[in-house]
Amino acid sequence: MRPILTVNLTALRNNYILLKSLHAKYNIASVVKANAYGLGVSGVSLALWEAGCREFFVATLDEGVELRAILPNAKIGVFQGLFAGEEKEYTLNNLLPVLNSVEQVRRFLAYKSWNSENPMIMHIDTGMARLGLSQTELSAIAASMETPEKKIIMSHLACANTPDHPKNAEQLARFKEDLQCFPNAKASLSNSAGLFLPHEFHFDLARTGCALYGINPLDKNNKDSENAVENVVTLSAPIVQIRSLDRDENIGYGATVAAPAGSRIAIVGMGYADGYSRLLGNKGFAYINEHKAPVIGRVSMDLIALDISKISEENLKNVNKAEFINDKQTVDDIARECNTIGYEIFTSIGARVKREYV
Amino acid sequence: MRPILTVNLTALRNNYILLKSLHAKYNIASVVKANAYGLGVSGVSLALWEAGCREFFVATLDEGVELRAILPNAKIGVFQGLFAGEEKEYTLNNLLPVLNSVEQVRRFLAYKSWNSENPMIMHIDTGMARLGLSQTELSAIAASMETPEKKIIMSHLACANTPDHPKNAEQLARFKEDLQCFPNAKASLSNSAGLFLPHEFHFDLARTGCALYGINPLDKNNKDSENAVENVVTLSAPIVQIRSLDRDENIGYGATVAAPAGSRIAIVGMGYADGYSRLLGNKGFAYINEHKAPVIGRVSMDLIALDISKISEENLKNVNKAEFINDKQTVDDIARECNTIGYEIFTSIGARVKREYV
Repeated sequence: MRPILTVNLTALRNNYILLKSLHAKYNIASVVKANAYGLGVSGVSLALWEAGCREFFVATLDEGVELRAILPNAKIGVFQGLFAGEEKEYTLNNLLPVLNSVEQVRRFLAYKSWNSENPMIMHIDTGMARLGLSQTELSAIAASMETPEKKIIMSHLACANTPDHPKNAEQLARFKEDLQCFPNAKASLSNSAGLFLPHEFHFDLARTGCALYGINPLDKNNKDSENAVENVVTLSAPIVQIRSLDRDENIGYGATVAAPAGSRIAIVGMGYADGYSRLLGNKGFAYINEHKAPVIGRVSMDLIALDISKISEENLKNVNKAEFINDKQTVDDIARECNTIGYEIFTSIGARVKREYV
Repeated sequence: MRPILTVNLTALRNNYILLKSLHAKYNIASVVKANAYGLGVSGVSLALWEAGCREFFVATLDEGVELRAILPNAKIGVFQGLFAGEEKEYTLNNLLPVLNSVEQVRRFLAYKSWNSENPMIMHIDTGMARLGLSQTELSAIAASMETPEKKIIMSHLACANTPDHPKNAEQLARFKEDLQCFPNAKASLSNSAGLFLPHEFHFDLARTGCALYGINPLDKNNKDSENAVENVVTLSAPIVQIRSLDRDENIGYGATVAAPAGSRIAIVGMGYADGYSRLLGNKGFAYINEHKAPVIGRVSMDLIALDISKISEENLKNVNKAEFINDKQTVDDIARECNTIGYEIFTSIGARVKREYV
């Protein structure tokens, strides 16, 4: 009996269509790195392809090779870039390295067998000091190297999820300056959140990830803030045992909590090894049908105890699972409880959790 | 370029031998559920088999089937138990269900094709209200059902990592009472930590997990507390770019921190999707050779920025990786920073991280 992550492909496609409508004149690429943020790269990528998406990004060369086997005709960019000796694997799989350093640019230009229909992608850092070329380096490349005609200049926003953060305007200004090095290149700046910024942030290609998967792209600490995109997933786990306590009893490791005789406890076959954080012990809750069942005691590696004392026998009839993420308790809600972001909740979901697509 | 989890099989075997010495007259089973706590079930189980271990436990039937393919001759118990319709898969793979409820016991007894050399395993709850039979249920089984001669009665300690917790003696007393229902059955109570409790906790079979993998089985909040077992793993990640800031610059998402011009930043190809917690942003550190490099800025999905300004050029020569878990910074140290336990750190390590065995 395994936990199940059910991915609603209709909601996924709706989110894609919404994001595309925010950027109607231009292209939307789907970011499917880290196993499509944990949702399963195969099911997710095929659905996005069917919805019309033709451009994809992954983090590593291995992920690119995996995605190429799934989507033979997609454009696939690889964020980590081009390391020594990887040229052949890139060309064999028709993958596009995102070039992050002068060394990577030199390596790209020294190799002559790239598919000439593909652009050369250069990534510049405009203010998060992560991967990418500096402005000085980009200028030097423009001044001293011969580059192919088709080029994409790319950068990444650090604070797009906070629309009024001054960093956004600062990065935009730097990006526009950088583009002057290659006036004919196409440009890509926005992630999901960037599409909710003014149109001048959008450029030719947006790279959307979180919002496709139902994560609220805007950082609103208000629990009731609205999310422009639809929830895509349900995370459920099988109830493997229901027990009625015949005496007062401590629940779980560390005996952190006691329940009185007569309490009813549902033991669920999912634990922190499946990605349900230990931080949610004595704090999180699940839904059994429409009814809230609080997590009682610590989360174990493979098991969670839910207090179902307040749910009637009638409402437990024919029930065999509990839902931990659904439309009523989204990944953003869980993330808030864990002092993190929905992305990390999704990418933590473990290999034992079966991915299903509806 | 991928992160690498290097598993030191010599240390693993040493830990096995140490635990066995604590329990010399009896058997030690290895718990290899959840992909051997994230370390890789195949490499780990084969090494333990070679070290002399013949009994193993996993959490789910799927894990049992996977382990059977790796170890054709091991005894393999499955904690989750026996659900309707699973009898055939259990017998086909010669797996032993751990029976957690009266329903599961009935199901076991109703099926006649079990390998008669295997014991019937019954799990009783002695005070953590997780899986298992109650004492009343066990008594009823003893009084009313005909069971095979070979039996193991099993329970699980909730607080063994805190040797002076009163719960330990309470569970021991209940367990001894329960054993009177089946005086000829073998008994199993201790996990790794239980082996560090007095000998009367040890019984016939101990089930060791965390201590095999180098996690301190005893909960000591003192950072300098000694660990009886050896560290088993090194978690390293490739340095994918080194940058010198040519201006004052914010680092990472949310612009949570600034670094002055001239700072040197190493970007590492690992992130929270690989199991390095976001809670360690602006807090954790890695080792580059012998030198500490603090995490600067937030942890991204696939990348971490390290401040290497204080490491000399000389000491960075020929360096291509940073270590996040090693003998100097163990999994328990990381866990403490994340307000969790080493088990969760290990089981969070993602699928992109390559497992290597030395």
